Amino acid sequence: MSSAAPHPAGHDQLWSVDEHLEDILATVRPLEPIELQLLDAQGCVLVEDVTVPVSLPPFDNSSMDGYAVRVADVAGASEEFPASLEVVGDVAAGQADLLHVGPGQAARIMTGAPLPPGAETVVPVEWTDGGLDEGPVTGMLARALAPEGAQGHVQVYRQAAARAHVRAQGSDVKAGDRALESGTVLGPPQIALLAAIGRGTVRVRPRPRVVVMSTGSELVPPGEDLGSGQIYDSNSFALTAAARDAGAIAYRVGAVADDAETLRSTIEDQLVRADLMVTTGGVSVGAYDVVKEALSQVGDDEDEAGGGVEFRKLAMQPGKPQGFGSIGPDHTPLLALPGNPVSSYVSFELFVRPAIRALMGLEEVHRPRTRATLTADKALTSPKGRRQFLRGAYADGAVTPVGGAGSHLVAALAHADALIVVPEDVESVEPGTEVEVVLLG
Amino acid sequence: MSSAAPHPAGHDQLWSVDEHLEDILATVRPLEPIELQLLDAQGCVLVEDVTVPVSLPPFDNSSMDGYAVRVADVAGASEEFPASLEVVGDVAAGQADLLHVGPGQAARIMTGAPLPPGAETVVPVEWTDGGLDEGPVTGMLARALAPEGAQGHVQVYRQAAARAHVRAQGSDVKAGDRALESGTVLGPPQIALLAAIGRGTVRVRPRPRVVVMSTGSELVPPGEDLGSGQIYDSNSFALTAAARDAGAIAYRVGAVADDAETLRSTIEDQLVRADLMVTTGGVSVGAYDVVKEALSQVGDDEDEAGGGVEFRKLAMQPGKPQGFGSIGPDHTPLLALPGNPVSSYVSFELFVRPAIRALMGLEEVHRPRTRATLTADKALTSPKGRRQFLRGAYADGAVTPVGGAGSHLVAALAHADALIVVPEDVESVEPGTEVEVVLLG
Repeated sequence: MSSAAPHPAGHDQLWSVDEHLEDILATVRPLEPIELQLLDAQGCVLVEDVTVPVSLPPFDNSSMDGYAVRVADVAGASEEFPASLEVVGDVAAGQADLLHVGPGQAARIMTGAPLPPGAETVVPVEWTDGGLDEGPVTGMLARALAPEGAQGHVQVYRQAAARAHVRAQGSDVKAGDRALESGTVLGPPQIALLAAIGRGTVRVRPRPRVVVMSTGSELVPPGEDLGSGQIYDSNSFALTAAARDAGAIAYRVGAVADDAETLRSTIEDQLVRADLMVTTGGVSVGAYDVVKEALSQVGDDEDEAGGGVEFRKLAMQPGKPQGFGSIGPDHTPLLALPGNPVSSYVSFELFVRPAIRALMGLEEVHRPRTRATLTADKALTSPKGRRQFLRGAYADGAVTPVGGAGSHLVAALAHADALIVVPEDVESVEPGTEVEVVLLG
Repeated sequence: MSSAAPHPAGHDQLWSVDEHLEDILATVRPLEPIELQLLDAQGCVLVEDVTVPVSLPPFDNSSMDGYAVRVADVAGASEEFPASLEVVGDVAAGQADLLHVGPGQAARIMTGAPLPPGAETVVPVEWTDGGLDEGPVTGMLARALAPEGAQGHVQVYRQAAARAHVRAQGSDVKAGDRALESGTVLGPPQIALLAAIGRGTVRVRPRPRVVVMSTGSELVPPGEDLGSGQIYDSNSFALTAAARDAGAIAYRVGAVADDAETLRSTIEDQLVRADLMVTTGGVSVGAYDVVKEALSQVGDDEDEAGGGVEFRKLAMQPGKPQGFGSIGPDHTPLLALPGNPVSSYVSFELFVRPAIRALMGLEEVHRPRTRATLTADKALTSPKGRRQFLRGAYADGAVTPVGGAGSHLVAALAHADALIVVPEDVESVEPGTEVEVVLLG
């Protein structure tokens, strides 16, 4: 492959944004599932149908702090004519050996504790004198302070129907029910349910490991002094942050100089920890575009499907030069983005983010889009035949351009929350026109 | 403090949801700012106004791969009558020592490279023969493959105006401009800008460290076998995940048995790594509600402002019993939530999440709310005087209840994405009525 070689003008195929994206999504396959500890699976996609192994709650239990009694023993009870019952002991949550509640008896019971044998209903402590013989109470004294509360007598001031304040076994979920379906994204409430039914681990697609590498001999890490002709490396920081934001585990390699051999060996070194590799810079038509040069030699065998990295010109602005393919023994997908900070960021949003989310097995790989009314002082202009992505601020159905169309306006990017899409066949958009907007969320 | 002691009925103050929330937000202060590495500051709130130390781009540079030339030398050039210029060498990005471009000369220049002295404009390589003398080309050969490209002659087929394809120094941001304001949340585009202007570290409020602890002798970790009267601990998992989701660094301690001394020493141990402590269970009126019992003794000196943990009854369902206060030498805020999984989750959403986001210094501490039309088979009923939060599924302006009002329906929670709010003074909501909805995102 010698993509950097000059060809007679006009022979280059121009790819559309959609063609490039389709090629990426047709190539990138979801990662193989692994079994993860519940909290390590947060944000991941479940790849098993989870059934409930044991009914919840697993036993009839009290929904109140109070007394477990027989219905007949409190029938007709009132403040004037309370039922007086013998307290046979405490039933606390988690208690294994249960008391038996006989006629004329009550067991002091705590929220979540199993309904003891013999008991038919629960009267809340607020309907009793709490065994203190001083009228209705609002709670119980801590057992440590007043162990005598578990004995003596209690006055009950109200009757209770059978199974009042009792949560029935299986009333939440029943053994054999489907708890969660394959494909569910595990957020906190899903983790709550999995834990509640006793699942300590689950089978999910892991977060992809994304290695981010910027290239360019002019790049200096932020915090150091700029020499003549140098600029700060922002892409490796921005795209590492963006990859994390998309759900990946991202590794920032930083800036590699424009030397094909160095770049090649760095990429080969990093392959071991990459499910996806992202480079910026070095993909255009210049004599120093070493990503092109280097990747023509680390590529897969070109005979294999999907092997090698292909460099393309896209009908878009910013972000015309793009590379995509797979490299190394595991056919690790690689996206080579242009080096300009805004071009690389827009390219990430359009191509890398969906690739990361496809690796995760998510159904929704794209940012949400909406339509909005353009608010601007003058018409937007856009080059014919190119799909343009302008930075914009979106609010309440309207979008306002931020900064100009210049692809180097990283300052404007930091104040935008949307991309305004100007289609290929549109060269001018008047204020007040409805436009498509990608919400950067 | 002896909060667990029974009082004559009717003497308990009933707090409203808003009063409890106001008390929390009036007490919880944003964490002290620290200087963090750029990528460690992702998602954090900036607490300095950042000005641009050096203009971007820091020097006039080429926006294309091509040739840096004098305007007069290419005036009137066409395919028929090309301008032939002597190539004096390459100007690559990052190159410190620049060539001088004299009359009749051209320097081969790469995107991002400084415009060399003497040159006035840039002609893209596609407007030239690339020095190959075979008509227009689409790019340059890699320097490693064809070093002769940096010498010889080039034919230029089109003229260029002064400063065409030149990005002017300071055209993105100027030294002294405000780059980002204090209070900005640092997402990927803001990190891009900070890196681009050379900031390696920034002053932000750190992510709060949240310790999550469930209490209850009945709790068994998921993955183990359930004994008689036991259930699985789901709260410590759910709330750890939810705390992370809110932006915190969360530590899951797991379930502590209902023993005040054990709980007290565990809390004291954990204080060292907590900016906020969250417990579940043990806050109601029962004799085994050890959170109440234990926290009456680890509290601050009650004479100090904000000292100690106060246990309250809230006019809400689920989530009536709640504790809030501060403990230990650093007055670490503590929220004690009820033990029921749905009650604790709803309480987290309403009270803990805003507290975490207040610690982060975020302006928006609450989940977004909207109004939606209730879709249901029958009217919703709600207890008088209590604000009810029902689990619902929201889509396109309509909300449908998921599961019943029973506070133990953790299965329903996992299929909900919204909370339906039924105000204190409403006891019944007919289908088709507009209701307030909290979007759980």
